[in-house]
Amino acid sequence: MKKETITGKHGYQIDADIAFKDVIPANYDILVISGGRGPEKMRLNKDALEIVKYFFKENKPVAAICHGPQVLISAGVIKGRKATCWPGIRDDIIAAGALYEDKEVVIDGNLVSSRSPSDLYAFGREMISITKHL
Amino acid sequence: MKKETITGKHGYQIDADIAFKDVIPANYDILVISGGRGPEKMRLNKDALEIVKYFFKENKPVAAICHGPQVLISAGVIKGRKATCWPGIRDDIIAAGALYEDKEVVIDGNLVSSRSPSDLYAFGREMISITKHL
Repeated sequence: MKKETITGKHGYQIDADIAFKDVIPANYDILVISGGRGPEKMRLNKDALEIVKYFFKENKPVAAICHGPQVLISAGVIKGRKATCWPGIRDDIIAAGALYEDKEVVIDGNLVSSRSPSDLYAFGREMISITKHL
Repeated sequence: MKKETITGKHGYQIDADIAFKDVIPANYDILVISGGRGPEKMRLNKDALEIVKYFFKENKPVAAICHGPQVLISAGVIKGRKATCWPGIRDDIIAAGALYEDKEVVIDGNLVSSRSPSDLYAFGREMISITKHL
């Protein structure tokens, strides 16, 4: 959420370049929402949700994997969209109106989604692909 | 899911007396669904969802805390019901049609729900209370 060093669940550290509140979404070509336990916090951050809404409003590429689609539910952008996610949150994206598909990668317009780390190859391939089409 | 010794995320072990598939729900007075990461697995188990549906159909007491309401979403029993949950899944129960309230404990008929471990006192008090009323 802030510009700081963060530690992932497996102990790897990464420096966050910028806080959500300071992001100017027009400056970015793609939004990638990863999984794990981060999305349950990110979805409660209003600045993060504004970034998501901007990407959908402008039809810019968004890629979400595993628990990442939780953020799309909170941003109110998943209704009527074909998507996939981690099996444990499948019924949540369905309840939010997504058209769930059990596939390694699902593409619907500006949105690319995958289920789990084992889908990462297809996820990466398609997220790069849509940046060329949109 | 099975009759076995399970280890919680803080390392405590407990012996599961019975597998979901062997439970006869009519033999129990209350269903308590705890939180953590278990509900994301429990909600994918058909036998577990049948137990939940039985308790709602028979108007028997159900208590769910933290991530527990994820199971209620998957069982299709939360629509139109007043409930609360862990903040990180708030938007999921709302998308599923629950009437969300940000309170330490919410009671709606046979359903008692709470947000987090800090609500445990109120949660325990009200779950015992409904077993006397229903």
